Amino acid sequence: MSYIPSSVLLEQMRAGNTWALGRLISRAEAGVAEVRPTLAEVYRSAGSAQIIGLTGVPGSGKSTLVGKLAAALRERGEKLGIVAIDPSSPYSGGAILGDRIRMTEVANDPNVYIRSMATRGATGGMARAALDAADLMDVAGYHTIVVETVGVGQDEVEIAHASDTTVVVSAPGLGDEIQAIKAGVLEIADIHVVSKCDRDDAGRTLTDLKRMLALEAMAGTRRAWTIPVVGVSSYTGQGIDELLDRIAAHRAAMAASGQGAERRRRVAEFRLQKTAETLLLERFGIGARAFSPPLADRLANRAFDPYAAARELITQTIQKEYANDLA
Amino acid sequence: MSYIPSSVLLEQMRAGNTWALGRLISRAEAGVAEVRPTLAEVYRSAGSAQIIGLTGVPGSGKSTLVGKLAAALRERGEKLGIVAIDPSSPYSGGAILGDRIRMTEVANDPNVYIRSMATRGATGGMARAALDAADLMDVAGYHTIVVETVGVGQDEVEIAHASDTTVVVSAPGLGDEIQAIKAGVLEIADIHVVSKCDRDDAGRTLTDLKRMLALEAMAGTRRAWTIPVVGVSSYTGQGIDELLDRIAAHRAAMAASGQGAERRRRVAEFRLQKTAETLLLERFGIGARAFSPPLADRLANRAFDPYAAARELITQTIQKEYANDLA
Repeated sequence: MSYIPSSVLLEQMRAGNTWALGRLISRAEAGVAEVRPTLAEVYRSAGSAQIIGLTGVPGSGKSTLVGKLAAALRERGEKLGIVAIDPSSPYSGGAILGDRIRMTEVANDPNVYIRSMATRGATGGMARAALDAADLMDVAGYHTIVVETVGVGQDEVEIAHASDTTVVVSAPGLGDEIQAIKAGVLEIADIHVVSKCDRDDAGRTLTDLKRMLALEAMAGTRRAWTIPVVGVSSYTGQGIDELLDRIAAHRAAMAASGQGAERRRRVAEFRLQKTAETLLLERFGIGARAFSPPLADRLANRAFDPYAAARELITQTIQKEYANDLA
Repeated sequence: MSYIPSSVLLEQMRAGNTWALGRLISRAEAGVAEVRPTLAEVYRSAGSAQIIGLTGVPGSGKSTLVGKLAAALRERGEKLGIVAIDPSSPYSGGAILGDRIRMTEVANDPNVYIRSMATRGATGGMARAALDAADLMDVAGYHTIVVETVGVGQDEVEIAHASDTTVVVSAPGLGDEIQAIKAGVLEIADIHVVSKCDRDDAGRTLTDLKRMLALEAMAGTRRAWTIPVVGVSSYTGQGIDELLDRIAAHRAAMAASGQGAERRRRVAEFRLQKTAETLLLERFGIGARAFSPPLADRLANRAFDPYAAARELITQTIQKEYANDLA
């Protein structure tokens, strides 16, 4: 099969072809240069979908919840896109699709588009690719886009926060280490969800979160939006509709207060930064390859130090690669 | 208190002052420019300690195991340094020290130096800071240095692999999502450990790992070192001595085959790359700050796209910041 230009795929995607959508996301993820003008065009057309960032530590029941949310949104007539950032191997490659199987309720629905993405690749590349994928789904006509990440690692948390509404999922009964990791995630929530509320020990988790929020409120941080805590059970269906209502209410509050526009500006700045880092490290990496091996040899012998070697690498690379920018 | 120059702290550290060691690690972690010549000097003096990378998914019992390993190494007369990379909040800052309390057995032993580091900060900065900390401990006279990371996230896995011997800890009875994350970690192991072997279901995990290794061996990947699977229990003490023996055997095998030197060369190349990325993004970040806000405004309005904006940001920044390199 011959290579179909990205501009042609874009036309097909606008006409409702989900295969073309999938191909474009793959090219965005791989960072191929040919797709970039198309992604630029897509970016300028996007912006009408509501982006929901959803995150939580491993074991919090995120994927199951996303499946239930998707089914409920479908009942409300929404077309829904899901970008799931999967943990993946930095050595063998390939996203692990294990937990996607929990979404079977919506897996064959043509109005729900599910895409798993790997977390590998260039620094900053994950955020850039996930947001490009969300734009593509937006332009393909999906009204609501859920970007789901595992809430471990700075990149993952930042991606979930690069949204119109951020939902953080907690679950009862996770271990110490998990709880410690969780601390970094809680602060980005517009809406807290406690999953597995059919369990006896869920009340404790609900109470803890509410107490934390009450303390913050006492500390005087006043906001246009009061962060709610919603208990859900993917097993009984409890709380799913309330969660959707809260998401809609958050959207309305952001629009009414003008904070929504400020937030999209912050997301744009994050995106600019991540895209610039990707392009910079990409060009640097290509240029650095020629100079790196002899420097690494001297470094391995401890005859040289990493800072001096890095400065030499940067200088040599810049002289070679960036000279045109300065012409 | 006046600022003590890093060169003075280094003298104090060489004389056995652990407070000075701690200060230097803090400066390395913060990335202050003043400490860099000292770190360069430290790098050239380092290289005699054995670096053990230890990683595993959340809940695998890594920290408890490190505590037991430390106690056993002490019985063998080793001075031991531990660099523990902690999950931390990207928003509020500060490493979470919760799981360090499990190391109480060795917490008051002057021959064991434990240091927790945050995972926040500039891209690539975590790897650079962790390896600088290991060098500092090396020069301070610690024979064995354990670098412990949570096995989630590419950076964390790469840091554990930037060692002389990499130990990957698995535990019985973790959930699906945890197992999926684990897949990315298994491949870097020189030694597999199954923790919690006092549990009934540990046999299954041991068997699974051994079967995976047997399949790889059949696939024809021949190595100078046969990867063992060691069952341990931090509760009963089972397997701790065997693990230390295996680590020593791995060291001997690497030295005998010449692969140890090849491996240190690979670590040097990784380190060069990470240090160069840190310096490049640092200089770029400082330069980019002036140009970023107006570009982000145009981006938020979707009048512009992230690739064009990023290219403009890079070009403007390079013209301003890098001109001297090209003189």
